[in-house]
Amino acid sequence: MRNLKIAIAGLGRIGRIHLGNLCQMKGVEIVAAMDPMEEGRQYAKNKNVPCIVSTYKEMLETTHIDAVIICSPTDTHADYVEMAAKAGINAFCEKPLDLSLERVVEVLEVVAQSNVKLMLGFNRRFDKEFKKVKELVQNGAVGQPHLVKITSRDPGAPPISYIEKSGGLFLDMTIHDFDVARFVVDKEVEEVYAKGAVLIDKAIGEAGDIDTAIVTLTYTDGTMAVIDNSRQASYGYDQRVEVFGSNGMVQSNNNFMDSHKLYNEKGIHAALPLHFFLERYKEAYRIEIQDFISSLGSDSDVPVNGNDGLESLKIGLAAIKSLEENRPVKLAEIC
Amino acid sequence: MRNLKIAIAGLGRIGRIHLGNLCQMKGVEIVAAMDPMEEGRQYAKNKNVPCIVSTYKEMLETTHIDAVIICSPTDTHADYVEMAAKAGINAFCEKPLDLSLERVVEVLEVVAQSNVKLMLGFNRRFDKEFKKVKELVQNGAVGQPHLVKITSRDPGAPPISYIEKSGGLFLDMTIHDFDVARFVVDKEVEEVYAKGAVLIDKAIGEAGDIDTAIVTLTYTDGTMAVIDNSRQASYGYDQRVEVFGSNGMVQSNNNFMDSHKLYNEKGIHAALPLHFFLERYKEAYRIEIQDFISSLGSDSDVPVNGNDGLESLKIGLAAIKSLEENRPVKLAEIC
Amino acid sequence: MRNLKIAIAGLGRIGRIHLGNLCQMKGVEIVAAMDPMEEGRQYAKNKNVPCIVSTYKEMLETTHIDAVIICSPTDTHADYVEMAAKAGINAFCEKPLDLSLERVVEVLEVVAQSNVKLMLGFNRRFDKEFKKVKELVQNGAVGQPHLVKITSRDPGAPPISYIEKSGGLFLDMTIHDFDVARFVVDKEVEEVYAKGAVLIDKAIGEAGDIDTAIVTLTYTDGTMAVIDNSRQASYGYDQRVEVFGSNGMVQSNNNFMDSHKLYNEKGIHAALPLHFFLERYKEAYRIEIQDFISSLGSDSDVPVNGNDGLESLKIGLAAIKSLEENRPVKLAEIC
Amino acid sequence: MRNLKIAIAGLGRIGRIHLGNLCQMKGVEIVAAMDPMEEGRQYAKNKNVPCIVSTYKEMLETTHIDAVIICSPTDTHADYVEMAAKAGINAFCEKPLDLSLERVVEVLEVVAQSNVKLMLGFNRRFDKEFKKVKELVQNGAVGQPHLVKITSRDPGAPPISYIEKSGGLFLDMTIHDFDVARFVVDKEVEEVYAKGAVLIDKAIGEAGDIDTAIVTLTYTDGTMAVIDNSRQASYGYDQRVEVFGSNGMVQSNNNFMDSHKLYNEKGIHAALPLHFFLERYKEAYRIEIQDFISSLGSDSDVPVNGNDGLESLKIGLAAIKSLEENRPVKLAEIC
Repeated sequence: MRNLKIAIAGLGRIGRIHLGNLCQMKGVEIVAAMDPMEEGRQYAKNKNVPCIVSTYKEMLETTHIDAVIICSPTDTHADYVEMAAKAGINAFCEKPLDLSLERVVEVLEVVAQSNVKLMLGFNRRFDKEFKKVKELVQNGAVGQPHLVKITSRDPGAPPISYIEKSGGLFLDMTIHDFDVARFVVDKEVEEVYAKGAVLIDKAIGEAGDIDTAIVTLTYTDGTMAVIDNSRQASYGYDQRVEVFGSNGMVQSNNNFMDSHKLYNEKGIHAALPLHFFLERYKEAYRIEIQDFISSLGSDSDVPVNGNDGLESLKIGLAAIKSLEENRPVKLAEIC
Repeated sequence: MRNLKIAIAGLGRIGRIHLGNLCQMKGVEIVAAMDPMEEGRQYAKNKNVPCIVSTYKEMLETTHIDAVIICSPTDTHADYVEMAAKAGINAFCEKPLDLSLERVVEVLEVVAQSNVKLMLGFNRRFDKEFKKVKELVQNGAVGQPHLVKITSRDPGAPPISYIEKSGGLFLDMTIHDFDVARFVVDKEVEEVYAKGAVLIDKAIGEAGDIDTAIVTLTYTDGTMAVIDNSRQASYGYDQRVEVFGSNGMVQSNNNFMDSHKLYNEKGIHAALPLHFFLERYKEAYRIEIQDFISSLGSDSDVPVNGNDGLESLKIGLAAIKSLEENRPVKLAEIC
Repeated sequence: MRNLKIAIAGLGRIGRIHLGNLCQMKGVEIVAAMDPMEEGRQYAKNKNVPCIVSTYKEMLETTHIDAVIICSPTDTHADYVEMAAKAGINAFCEKPLDLSLERVVEVLEVVAQSNVKLMLGFNRRFDKEFKKVKELVQNGAVGQPHLVKITSRDPGAPPISYIEKSGGLFLDMTIHDFDVARFVVDKEVEEVYAKGAVLIDKAIGEAGDIDTAIVTLTYTDGTMAVIDNSRQASYGYDQRVEVFGSNGMVQSNNNFMDSHKLYNEKGIHAALPLHFFLERYKEAYRIEIQDFISSLGSDSDVPVNGNDGLESLKIGLAAIKSLEENRPVKLAEIC
Repeated sequence: MRNLKIAIAGLGRIGRIHLGNLCQMKGVEIVAAMDPMEEGRQYAKNKNVPCIVSTYKEMLETTHIDAVIICSPTDTHADYVEMAAKAGINAFCEKPLDLSLERVVEVLEVVAQSNVKLMLGFNRRFDKEFKKVKELVQNGAVGQPHLVKITSRDPGAPPISYIEKSGGLFLDMTIHDFDVARFVVDKEVEEVYAKGAVLIDKAIGEAGDIDTAIVTLTYTDGTMAVIDNSRQASYGYDQRVEVFGSNGMVQSNNNFMDSHKLYNEKGIHAALPLHFFLERYKEAYRIEIQDFISSLGSDSDVPVNGNDGLESLKIGLAAIKSLEENRPVKLAEIC
């Protein structure tokens, strides 16, 4: 079987991770990279990528590409996916596809009419902890799921400049939790009630966002999920999920720096959770891109498709509306 | 110092626990007991209670009493407290004082005009786990509290006959969690949003109640709490609390049957939580009644007063209204 | 069924615990107490014990007694048990029966020729943790046991005056672990190798004892146990056991003050083990004396008999010899 | 700075791991590989190693080499290290250097007279768990160390053919624990007492080895360590260490497959330890070889030197003698 020819768009933090993982993979040939910034292009050069350009269009035209990995800024995602689909190139795109529901729908239609595969980068689906929870739920280990609880707290708030463009907490951060809420129990969300506050940094409020939230989701079958978020957990990155059902409960916990326990006269002391998402999800990123590559070489679907992006976006938009109007909002209202 | 003369009204499950604990206490003399049922009176007889009667009125009139422990059915609580207050007798009363807000207000006014102490039986405040969480929060160990999370799941649903009279999940079960939410961070609740479902037993729904719920509370300072409830956790009684703040997080866990871990080829296996509230809160009940007795012999306030009962009831009534109308309800609407 | 008439010899720390527990028990009547010290007798008086004397002989002669609880100093144990046996009175005796093997054998023969029951106070056998381990081992949960590991560390060293009379670490402290080693796997010990050191307090060494030890036991079937001891664990009382077998492993852990976990930027912090044996084994003491009482009223054997005391003593004496001669010592050498 | 030219001898299981890690490292150029087996050479070919040969001698002569990674069978280690040293080539050698103490001493002398660095492959020193324990001990977190406890159990026994040549349990398996015992407290061992048995597989006994052991080590300062070993833990690879000292205790635990906890009516269930040493120590292997490479480019010593191999071998030989003669053996007796 011939190697898959892969191009990568954007060599910022995430792009470099994907490039590093792709370089280790059998059957993969990195044929091109693009980055409008000199620094990104230099990074690709050091990794011996043969064709390095500064525009996406040029990259698609220059060389034969089987799939493109899109890690460029959010506002380019929709265009880049659309261009790839029209050129018959499969795409892996970091979330979100776009902050506008209309634009996402439009792009997904283009993808649907093409013959290409599109995968969205919801990395947590590839983390061993979340996968194990889903697997146990799927196997019936907890019976019928009644309640899903997701804790998702970042170690520190992003810069205000990021928040201003990100769509805010619900679209840049909670959107992962919305996806997890759908993923672990394989149910669709019908209604959202979001409560939020600015408790960490007034500047976040001045930028029109919140930094702390509790979101209640109601699935179409009447069961419920609750997500709690904070932009800043002093003890690091906090990512837990719990599914309670008719026959049991399953929880996954954080991953810690090490397992040591120190006993002294003041108490018992242990290590903190891995501090940053790049450490916690290092292995998940590797498996994510591996699974994308595997799906290209087979008849199987991609593990996270355009609709998964669409649904999470709808939940996010409903959460924003709910917060603004302080009332539960049906997803059906978002369209 | 002379012994305190204590009477006990109602010798059902809880009454017997209080009687047992009182019998161990120094400075306490059980002088009377009342129960309309022969079985309850016989129980008191076996414990050598000197004066045993079948009506509350008779008990108050027969002998000198310093304080009465009211463990009779809920619909007698208000009357019994009122009668005690008017007779100048201190009272410990199991929660709730009454399901009607008007009646509670009325009784609390009678108590206020009397010279007696009234304590409400929110037993979790005396549990070492909840106390430790409150103590750490109070000491600033988590900084400014931002989020409170309470998990409260019963090992099995009560009989439908109980549910029909109890006021429903929010007034018979979540009311403890409402009190815990106020207790651990010492904040008042301003708004309630309740979402519920019947997922365990249709008969519960037919009785007009729910068996599964997620309740979001907003405190007056804009911080938030979330409570998740189930009438039936297959693995036993699940009682956890977590307070997340600007500088840290504190969690308390269940109490388990034992600490064993069994490793075999299938996994690692451990013991379940203590199954029933009487086991989990055995020591809390002892301390609760001890603290009541101690407060009688001193100038100190009772650790749970009438207002604590009133506030929890208001939150419960707001939760009921919220569930019915599927919207957040301000406590100010309840009056 | 008539009440059992119980007398208690010695109202020091342990005697008071047993008395307190006995007072709660149905079918038990405390008929007499003895203590050579005024303070002990006063304690009994406050507990309304009807007959209170200052010598053991007087107590046995004064009133009809079904069983005596012997909590007096170690050097009285053998005589008191012997006197009880000769008087046809059942006895519960705190360990050890005596520090002299000859004397123990002698007393056990007197007991054997009498018709009375003798139980030794190895309290850990009644602790839920050790019981659970034994139960799982017995049920085959770990398959054939290969290794037993016991950690036993005290929160602080006893006074030198105690150490001088106690028989030393192996006879006053490790003797409990020797019993646990026999108890959890129901095997007899054949050989002992003891290594010890004075690492905590030179005065202990000057008193002829050690404060830190590792003892390897070989059972008659060739499987092994290892015990580690310290007189002083800065973090409190440390009591753990682990049994490893052909199909798995079971561990029991300490019991902690509470379950809280505090996360802050320095780490995760939890509560210490219960600090003192009286707290850790509070419930074990209650069950121990309850089981003794139950065995009296039935045909069943006492749960810890004279031979259990004898075997542990032999192991202890072998450990002493092993330490002195720095070589493994067979139990057969001790006689 | 120019790249370091690295050659690798032996491309079995461990050789491939080192090769994979070296390929990821900056400043490293794999210049040659040798393996007497076609399969090993083919593996190197697929990894694009430029010079691939079938004898060690040929490899050393063919190309310029800065360092060689020796992963060939144990009986070649001493010769290969010697040849490298004489050729002025630095060497990383998998443990043990040799099973013969005389030969090890001889080789170390050759190394000492040369100008090369020799590092031994005690991989656990690079595992985050053991490193953390050492770091805390070094920082005084437990005060003066009194007791070291090491649990080391394999998931399954190796083939009898391996055991016949390996030197037996103490030299092929416990030798890692002997190194850990020295490493975590930075103390030298003076005396060994080993107790062992054949409890898992009679064939192991017939091959002259044991499969289960408890080894007590006494350090030169009188403090002690105890190691327990089994060739076969049904629940996987069990690698724990505990250091108890005057001011506290530190423990490290296994690394588990994931963190899930499943609660159901039968109990709480969690995932097993990582099953195999290659999974548990995957990252340790990477850091180990990285640290070797780093030490070459600097004046710093290698983190595990020839003396570390020598001391562990002495302890192992003392353990063998102790087991045979059932008595404690001083290291001074081994020479």
